[in-house]
Amino acid sequence: MPRPTIALDAMGGDAAPNIVVEGAALARVRFPDVKFIMFGDKRKISPLIDKHDNLKRSVSIYHTDDAVSSEERPAVALRQGRNSSMQLAINAVNSGEAAGIVSAGNTGALMAMAKVSLKMLPGIDRPAIAAPCPTKVGESVLLDLGANVEGDAENLVQFGMLGAAFARTVFGIEQPTVGLLNVGAEEVKGHDAVRQAAAIFRERKLPFTFHGFVEGDDIGAGSVDVFVVDGFTGNITLKTLEGTVRLYSEYLQQTFRSSLMSKFAYFLARGAFAKMKARIDPRRYNGATFLGLNGVVVKSHGGTDSFGFANAIGVAVDMATNDINDFIVRELAEYGEQDVPQARIV
Amino acid sequence: MPRPTIALDAMGGDAAPNIVVEGAALARVRFPDVKFIMFGDKRKISPLIDKHDNLKRSVSIYHTDDAVSSEERPAVALRQGRNSSMQLAINAVNSGEAAGIVSAGNTGALMAMAKVSLKMLPGIDRPAIAAPCPTKVGESVLLDLGANVEGDAENLVQFGMLGAAFARTVFGIEQPTVGLLNVGAEEVKGHDAVRQAAAIFRERKLPFTFHGFVEGDDIGAGSVDVFVVDGFTGNITLKTLEGTVRLYSEYLQQTFRSSLMSKFAYFLARGAFAKMKARIDPRRYNGATFLGLNGVVVKSHGGTDSFGFANAIGVAVDMATNDINDFIVRELAEYGEQDVPQARIV
Repeated sequence: MPRPTIALDAMGGDAAPNIVVEGAALARVRFPDVKFIMFGDKRKISPLIDKHDNLKRSVSIYHTDDAVSSEERPAVALRQGRNSSMQLAINAVNSGEAAGIVSAGNTGALMAMAKVSLKMLPGIDRPAIAAPCPTKVGESVLLDLGANVEGDAENLVQFGMLGAAFARTVFGIEQPTVGLLNVGAEEVKGHDAVRQAAAIFRERKLPFTFHGFVEGDDIGAGSVDVFVVDGFTGNITLKTLEGTVRLYSEYLQQTFRSSLMSKFAYFLARGAFAKMKARIDPRRYNGATFLGLNGVVVKSHGGTDSFGFANAIGVAVDMATNDINDFIVRELAEYGEQDVPQARIV
Repeated sequence: MPRPTIALDAMGGDAAPNIVVEGAALARVRFPDVKFIMFGDKRKISPLIDKHDNLKRSVSIYHTDDAVSSEERPAVALRQGRNSSMQLAINAVNSGEAAGIVSAGNTGALMAMAKVSLKMLPGIDRPAIAAPCPTKVGESVLLDLGANVEGDAENLVQFGMLGAAFARTVFGIEQPTVGLLNVGAEEVKGHDAVRQAAAIFRERKLPFTFHGFVEGDDIGAGSVDVFVVDGFTGNITLKTLEGTVRLYSEYLQQTFRSSLMSKFAYFLARGAFAKMKARIDPRRYNGATFLGLNGVVVKSHGGTDSFGFANAIGVAVDMATNDINDFIVRELAEYGEQDVPQARIV
């Protein structure tokens, strides 16, 4: 079992650096061999680390006073944030010091910095943001969640390759199924990009099973392991899903509060409800990953807590220990576009 | 109070004509003055009507042997379905015999026939499918749900006008708020069409309040009365929402079944849960409407029951009695595109 080192942007997130350090301590319980480099304000980070015996010998701190604020425009962060905790953490991945980076900071800045520093994998034109989501039968991965607001058929095909690699290496599914989100299951449905992508999937030899078109309600049903969609629709879809879970939870709480009898009922069933809550807990699905970059980059929700941050670290560790990017490069060499220049494949 | 006559496609839907006749009987309880013309197989419809005293004098039957199947391609239905219950019901709207039509049949065929027969309202280039959805604070309307898979900024602006007219006439909201679904709330976010649409909304005088960009989780929160999005994303969004509600309900059932104690808890709280179920009942939100056509057209879910079908009838009655299309034409004349030829506005 390898012992990956993960770079952590200690200053990113609403409750940083606390959730970062506490999250790292929690992650070490699940991955006792993992090491961390924390980038940020040493004066704030050190006293927090001192509280955790399992961090003292597994964390090195790289001090910087600079941090990217959550409101900063990506282009500005890129120009002015050379010494920011975020950029320095990315640099550690680029230099090979760290096998991956986790940040709960500014998403746009993280994407911009990661693209410029790490560059794309050979054969991939654009990165995609991917995240696991709960389904009736387990979990599936959904991408792109907004790295791109426009794209063509070949981008969708590449997202399929990336998502399948994620399902294979992180979920451990040998032959994942991939579906293209569309407005109907029939071949004639949808706009040009999605129909062309389906045509390409059907004619190529693939390292996964192409299931065809799927619809929005297939996500909850878990009809496929990988849901592929453009970043505009994917972003709105994921946030609608999150908003609907929140609405339903709100209705449920109101229901239990509505009478003495229902309050008592909740008291009786509270154990079962704790289990249900854990199952749909958004913190469990925290950790969106930027696929297609030449380095493992995981973005935690900015508002998460230490439990959620620990799960984001878990995603980075899984991706790093399973060498997802080497895997993607090999698969693209074998199954990617025929006209990819072989010279580009390292 | 006007007494609208509604044309019903008695042969559309999985359980037609039963749900259509039973639904009509239920709708008459809420709208005692409404009249119906049912199009379909008289031998099947008549005996069903005879069971309901409140239908006997309020329903006329127009017999036809022909019906559009749920698998029929729209173009084929259009060519070969001239005598179908669906087409004849649309004709009744076109001739003025009926103030609106409700069908639980083939969506694509209904849209194709309605577009060809009824045509667009002056100033509207494309129809949009709109449906109400539950929110934390009540209900909002979401459009387009898939009438178009592509469109430009002006289409989105027109959808905003249509959705606002729906919110004003059906929800009774004097000054509705309209939001454009996007990947973020900032002005710079999104692709060209959505940013241009926002720019147009900001520069025009409008009969509603333009709220700016909204995100997927704003739907559940009910941040605006009208959510505007392209048909591709809107269709996937609505189905994701439905799928998530189904997933959550499934989890909830499993939770209550998980132990004797939780089964007892459900027994105690069953009244409160019946209320919650009613609140998110998809049948309550049944009835997607085709806005922008020169006639009221409401599409019921094909798999609905009589309660759901009655709600779809309710949407048609609300739209017809509030003269939504006259309202839209007047608003477009006052607030629509400056270069709309006045001659086109009847």
